[in-house]
Amino acid sequence: MRVSVIGGGSVDESTANLAREVGRRLAARDHVVVCGGLGGVMAAACEGASAAGGRSIGILPTTDRSDANDHVDTVIATGLGHARNPLVVMNGDAVIAVDGGSGTLSELGFAGVFDRPIAGLQTHDAPGVEPVETPAEAVDYVESAGQH
Amino acid sequence: MRVSVIGGGSVDESTANLAREVGRRLAARDHVVVCGGLGGVMAAACEGASAAGGRSIGILPTTDRSDANDHVDTVIATGLGHARNPLVVMNGDAVIAVDGGSGTLSELGFAGVFDRPIAGLQTHDAPGVEPVETPAEAVDYVESAGQH
Amino acid sequence: MRVSVIGGGSVDESTANLAREVGRRLAARDHVVVCGGLGGVMAAACEGASAAGGRSIGILPTTDRSDANDHVDTVIATGLGHARNPLVVMNGDAVIAVDGGSGTLSELGFAGVFDRPIAGLQTHDAPGVEPVETPAEAVDYVESAGQH
Amino acid sequence: MRVSVIGGGSVDESTANLAREVGRRLAARDHVVVCGGLGGVMAAACEGASAAGGRSIGILPTTDRSDANDHVDTVIATGLGHARNPLVVMNGDAVIAVDGGSGTLSELGFAGVFDRPIAGLQTHDAPGVEPVETPAEAVDYVESAGQH
Repeated sequence: MRVSVIGGGSVDESTANLAREVGRRLAARDHVVVCGGLGGVMAAACEGASAAGGRSIGILPTTDRSDANDHVDTVIATGLGHARNPLVVMNGDAVIAVDGGSGTLSELGFAGVFDRPIAGLQTHDAPGVEPVETPAEAVDYVESAGQH
Repeated sequence: MRVSVIGGGSVDESTANLAREVGRRLAARDHVVVCGGLGGVMAAACEGASAAGGRSIGILPTTDRSDANDHVDTVIATGLGHARNPLVVMNGDAVIAVDGGSGTLSELGFAGVFDRPIAGLQTHDAPGVEPVETPAEAVDYVESAGQH
Repeated sequence: MRVSVIGGGSVDESTANLAREVGRRLAARDHVVVCGGLGGVMAAACEGASAAGGRSIGILPTTDRSDANDHVDTVIATGLGHARNPLVVMNGDAVIAVDGGSGTLSELGFAGVFDRPIAGLQTHDAPGVEPVETPAEAVDYVESAGQH
Repeated sequence: MRVSVIGGGSVDESTANLAREVGRRLAARDHVVVCGGLGGVMAAACEGASAAGGRSIGILPTTDRSDANDHVDTVIATGLGHARNPLVVMNGDAVIAVDGGSGTLSELGFAGVFDRPIAGLQTHDAPGVEPVETPAEAVDYVESAGQH
């Protein structure tokens, strides 16, 4: 299935490691990573997926495909600014959130709107978010709850 | 100034009364209500504004202006579905949230993205939300914190 | 009714005069001008409407209301970039095109999508465009063809 | 490179054959087809690409990935309605138009906005459209003019 990985666009190394591990584990289970295409958690998740031989889709806020991080497989430009956030969520069957600020909160709201299960690693305590401790638990949760 | 009033699209009478009072008080202070143009909190806020001789702007998810509630002054159709949520927030200088589910949560996230102050009446406990007890307090808060 | 006035964002004085006269005549007949909120034909149409005591709505590509020209009555920010073009068209009941390049052509396409009548002054020869010679003829045409 | 194939959503068999051949030839030259994901020219172009072992991206107006035609490789849902048209164009490096009505005209406008070269097969006579006679000529044209 496809899993949207959302989270902070600029994060410390320990958070990036978490997101990288999420991407790696998703790819190892043949899932495709969907993200916002930029840096931080987005780039780390794509990097992890790529390292494990998997695929990723990056849905950018800008019109320019070259704004994507270097690890995205399929880049989609939108030019919509923050209005691309619902697209990131609706293009996954489930969501894994890692860290994140206001943009991530908007995406957690859309996950509810589009009825996507959400696993949360060190992120907002918001309705529908299942708090998990590790990337492995996050992947297990979305596999059990997601739309296959 | 303009104030975005966000909240549940289908609410009980006591919540509608709160939203109506928010709209009435905003209009009485010469503020324009911005909302998503549909029912529940949106309709009640517009009704309150209208009753007090004020104005409202309703930014619809659909392409059809006739989908707006009967109390909106200026209807803007978008056809964007839920991607119109950031527009509701960015067109106000501040936000008052009353109740609300997932769509409202996405808007609270965008309020953070666009750096809008938020007063919250019986709504999500999310970053940046100043909990208030009454419509009067909500209006006072956004007046003191908003961009005039 | 509402009439979308579309056209070049940067025009010479004679084209601006045409657009100003379109705005003036629409306002004199109690119609509201809808436009993209920026310069050129958009600014001139709003200026004409304002001079005649009428109203205008400007739907901006950016997130910042202060990007609107000085003559817009109600500014709507979108942050959608060029994806705001369909919004300009769908929020009018008819379209008057004055001059214009590629962006205007995209809007003429949307006028067809949303089934809006179009009067064209010195603009593209595109399907559905009724070529007219003067602002007076443009207003007469949309009044006779538009959805009242 | 990526090539956006645009055109009518419901076409006769001879037009579908043209679009299928465009898709086949693009894939044979290792280009990726980008389209609006639905029927008619969009489905035929994807089918041609798929038959030649190539890839396609379908950018839907709806929120539901299952609305895509059966031949799309990577489906992107948007929920934006017709406001997804600029995304179809901006995600290609060049455009091939086959037949088409108002929606296609809006996309030809966006091709100008985003400065994409356009080859046209039995389509609108619009600014920037290079009329060609065959799918082979269309592919040759966008290869010579496109951004590699």
